[in-house]
Amino acid sequence: MENNNISILGAGLIGSLLGIYLKKRGLDVSIFEKRKDKRGQTTREEGRSINMALSDRGWKALEKVGLKNKVKDLAIPMYGRRIHDEHGHTTFIPYGKEGEAIYSISRGKFNEILIDEAEKLGVNLFFDHRCDEVNINKRQIKFSIPGWERKKISSSVIIGADGAYSSLRGSMQKQERFDFTQNYITHGYKELSIPPTADGEFAMDPNALHIWPRGKFMLIALPNPDKSFTCTLFLPFEGTKVCFEKIHDKKDVDSVFRTYFDDAYGMMPHLQEEYFQNPTSALITINCFPWVKNQCLLIGDASHAMVPFYGQGMNCGFEDCFVLDGLIDKFGTTSWDLIFEKFQKMRKPDTDAISQLALENFVEMRDAVSDPKFAIRKKIEARLHELYPKEWIPLYTMVTFSNIPYAEAYAQGKIQERIMDKVMADPLITHKWDKLDYEDIIDQVETARMV
Amino acid sequence: MENNNISILGAGLIGSLLGIYLKKRGLDVSIFEKRKDKRGQTTREEGRSINMALSDRGWKALEKVGLKNKVKDLAIPMYGRRIHDEHGHTTFIPYGKEGEAIYSISRGKFNEILIDEAEKLGVNLFFDHRCDEVNINKRQIKFSIPGWERKKISSSVIIGADGAYSSLRGSMQKQERFDFTQNYITHGYKELSIPPTADGEFAMDPNALHIWPRGKFMLIALPNPDKSFTCTLFLPFEGTKVCFEKIHDKKDVDSVFRTYFDDAYGMMPHLQEEYFQNPTSALITINCFPWVKNQCLLIGDASHAMVPFYGQGMNCGFEDCFVLDGLIDKFGTTSWDLIFEKFQKMRKPDTDAISQLALENFVEMRDAVSDPKFAIRKKIEARLHELYPKEWIPLYTMVTFSNIPYAEAYAQGKIQERIMDKVMADPLITHKWDKLDYEDIIDQVETARMV
Repeated sequence: MENNNISILGAGLIGSLLGIYLKKRGLDVSIFEKRKDKRGQTTREEGRSINMALSDRGWKALEKVGLKNKVKDLAIPMYGRRIHDEHGHTTFIPYGKEGEAIYSISRGKFNEILIDEAEKLGVNLFFDHRCDEVNINKRQIKFSIPGWERKKISSSVIIGADGAYSSLRGSMQKQERFDFTQNYITHGYKELSIPPTADGEFAMDPNALHIWPRGKFMLIALPNPDKSFTCTLFLPFEGTKVCFEKIHDKKDVDSVFRTYFDDAYGMMPHLQEEYFQNPTSALITINCFPWVKNQCLLIGDASHAMVPFYGQGMNCGFEDCFVLDGLIDKFGTTSWDLIFEKFQKMRKPDTDAISQLALENFVEMRDAVSDPKFAIRKKIEARLHELYPKEWIPLYTMVTFSNIPYAEAYAQGKIQERIMDKVMADPLITHKWDKLDYEDIIDQVETARMV
Repeated sequence: MENNNISILGAGLIGSLLGIYLKKRGLDVSIFEKRKDKRGQTTREEGRSINMALSDRGWKALEKVGLKNKVKDLAIPMYGRRIHDEHGHTTFIPYGKEGEAIYSISRGKFNEILIDEAEKLGVNLFFDHRCDEVNINKRQIKFSIPGWERKKISSSVIIGADGAYSSLRGSMQKQERFDFTQNYITHGYKELSIPPTADGEFAMDPNALHIWPRGKFMLIALPNPDKSFTCTLFLPFEGTKVCFEKIHDKKDVDSVFRTYFDDAYGMMPHLQEEYFQNPTSALITINCFPWVKNQCLLIGDASHAMVPFYGQGMNCGFEDCFVLDGLIDKFGTTSWDLIFEKFQKMRKPDTDAISQLALENFVEMRDAVSDPKFAIRKKIEARLHELYPKEWIPLYTMVTFSNIPYAEAYAQGKIQERIMDKVMADPLITHKWDKLDYEDIIDQVETARMV
């Protein structure tokens, strides 16, 4: 046990980035991954979203280990939402100031870069290792390996970066006083695609996240470097007029798409095949506490899986790595339980906040964005930010283009929300939004903060 | 699969009673229990409370299978709470009307009766069978048996009556769209005892549930047929002036008991030994949904474990059996999924309600009961019930001495609480409680119900 070796469960985005961070400190790091080593192959990840949106927190964590530029080559900037109405008309609403963007990146290629880098640095990689159980008191991990072989290893430190269905968390859950919640939302999702046009171009503006908001449901699309778009259809599983349960055959798919997403429909030649080939997946929120026990730690989705509607799941997991690394800077690599306890104490309020924001943002994405007043609201907030760059930072900007702790962003956001609700209640707001008394709005923020 | 055989996991109180119910219908029933067959032995159940409080819902379920009288011989009626203040003075506050009581019964002996009865009826009993996993799609159960043997069985119906740490639920949790929460409260508990006096008598009034309420913590005692009392000490685990973490040695135990429970202390000759021999256990609340999947059902604590402060965990589990049996009456023994779906739909709001009431009642037991106004409040409610037996049934009575659905009791209780808070806010209530305008109070209930 004295050799201070570290076992990370999961070679996904968070596990491999964490491996890089820890290896750079000269530690003995092993990563165990239940999947095969699929580098160099172009297989589809089953049941997991293949498109991610990288934003500032993610970039910052990549930059610290010198990977920013390498990753940037794979990423496509999206400067705002492009909202498609039922008639195919679109409206563009920027995410932030000019030049501010979130970046579309495909999970598979990105993960390969991180695993390659970890390997290059000397991280021990073990694929095809499914963790069956962790004995937390002894810090022993039992793995199943293809061909029915079993393997048991011991480790000074075990970190579960093994996702929403974490095996380390499963073992922690059997410990006394481990609080745990898993909650599914009423909606599921299905991935579809828009291929490049006949002349090999993007079928739509590639520098936007496309949304077809339809109240209770929506379709979105993110650009890929091969000039296709990955679309995700979010529908209730059952019980509403348009839901997965009621789509039985190609005719039903046709009918839903022609009625609600007609402009997208025209760009989706493989719609019916994809619809029935691709799985319908569920969306889970995980909340648990504690994250730490006897030098075992949960990180990323394993401790706080969230729904994807704020595009922060991966960014938050990367920020976990960044924050943890900062604590190692401060406390060294010997008192792991101290570091882990500080980590969870610091991080839990922030991950609770972003998890809640992600749930709330679903309503905004599928419904609010289609309201003409939404664009005006965003314009007023952008103006406020321009005039008072420190006093009013829009919530989306705090979350996406800053490193303000999520919990602080959440609290500020609630104050802004109340004030903006009042501003928007003016029946003539559409006409006079650019003649508002902006100073008075800022005064309201100051007052609210003092309460 | 056509033989309609039923496998019940767990031979605890709920599993064995359910076995009796189903066997009486002529079904092929097997019960699998991970513990040894301990009948005839007088070992202490590790880490589980050995005293239960049987009340009307429990009795009704026992009566339907003809076990009421057999069980009654083992049970001691407790007609009210006897509150011990710091000076050893006691106050008696009845639970209900004259003659209404909850019944103290020890888990071990009670469980034996139920298992014996199940066996006599022809239920197949398998002890030493630890369920490792249930394959829900195939309805296959994998068991570990001492000596490393493994066993796999198939069953048409699988019912998990395997408690708060249910193995069937563990397998369901891996299914998509299974919502699940486990939450521990900040307090733990430890069992202690008050033996009979030197001349072989009860050391206190045996026909009451004794409470030493001390605000943030409390001690309680329930009578046993051998004239001892089983005591349970509830303390915060850590972080308060009096908590488990701060009790290190016999001197600390002495000091806490002499300061806060001096009269009990005088009756506890084995206090120090017991304190350090007996485990400190945690208290969990389980909430999950759905309870049903492919003819597999969760029942009792497996689906809705609650904290013990309303004394309803077992009673609620027994009522589960009673309700399920009623549905079998109606729908026969062929369409299990239909029955199980109806069961969860009916039962979930009720078990959510009692689970919540159990959490709320902890504050009442450890704190409110010591307020002199608590006794007055109970007297006013008793008078209201006497004058208007249908219009005002006190919450405790609805839960404990009736079969009113828990959810309805909860809703009524909230209306009563608001009205009684107003009544009690009168600064002179202590003097004029028996001269109130009771009719006006009833009018307020009518009004509140209409809203």
